[in-house]
Amino acid sequence: MFELHPRLQQDCIALGRFSLCRLLLMNDSHYPWFILVPERAGVTEIFQLPAAEQQQLLQESSLLAQTLATVFTADKMNIAAIGNLVPQLHVHHVVRYKTDAAWPAPVWGFTGPTPYDKQALAILQIRVASALGDALCRLP
Amino acid sequence: MFELHPRLQQDCIALGRFSLCRLLLMNDSHYPWFILVPERAGVTEIFQLPAAEQQQLLQESSLLAQTLATVFTADKMNIAAIGNLVPQLHVHHVVRYKTDAAWPAPVWGFTGPTPYDKQALAILQIRVASALGDALCRLP
Repeated sequence: MFELHPRLQQDCIALGRFSLCRLLLMNDSHYPWFILVPERAGVTEIFQLPAAEQQQLLQESSLLAQTLATVFTADKMNIAAIGNLVPQLHVHHVVRYKTDAAWPAPVWGFTGPTPYDKQALAILQIRVASALGDALCRLP
Repeated sequence: MFELHPRLQQDCIALGRFSLCRLLLMNDSHYPWFILVPERAGVTEIFQLPAAEQQQLLQESSLLAQTLATVFTADKMNIAAIGNLVPQLHVHHVVRYKTDAAWPAPVWGFTGPTPYDKQALAILQIRVASALGDALCRLP
């Protein structure tokens, strides 16, 4: 049975779910940083998913990336499945700006997180939920 | 018309092509590090490709990742589309070991490259070409 890895639970805020993946927000206000986690137990690599679920992951990833690029006027999207520390398959979607703290370096390991304050988090959640519309379901 | 970005040309060795993507080897013997570049001009994000080409990219990526994981007995595959320095869409496929130079950090920006020597490069090319078989076409 699928259970979110404790490290993702600790570092992220759950925003909802798509058909296959749970959508998380990394609680680090340096960058709009989202994570898709396919709700499948024991999977560590994309190629381990059945072909139809790989395609579903791709669709959810592209919808998310395109929406974030538009909503946040990204200079670049960084999309990555790394998982050296958290083996549970999860795909980062990070909105990057040429003016952000880490640019042009990748964000992983660059600096410690700065959590969102309540108001900034509420505004961000509304923007993202509104842009994704019906594709995103609320968590129970 | 598609032309490989000069930085990729400089840093990599072309190994062949799949149906959509050119397959490159990063000339850095720290890690077996491969790059897929869809042969499409002016594309910087996966979501900019037509849906059928996104699926083709996914298929080539999963075939490559699974093959590399097997051939090199990877502890983890790291797969990423970053492109902060080289905007031309390209997808990294890096074989990672718990004993490699950067583990558990990502490889980008970790250390300068150590180019392959001729013999190591020849052996690696034969292993990869043999494992990928007919899926990989030679470059002209």
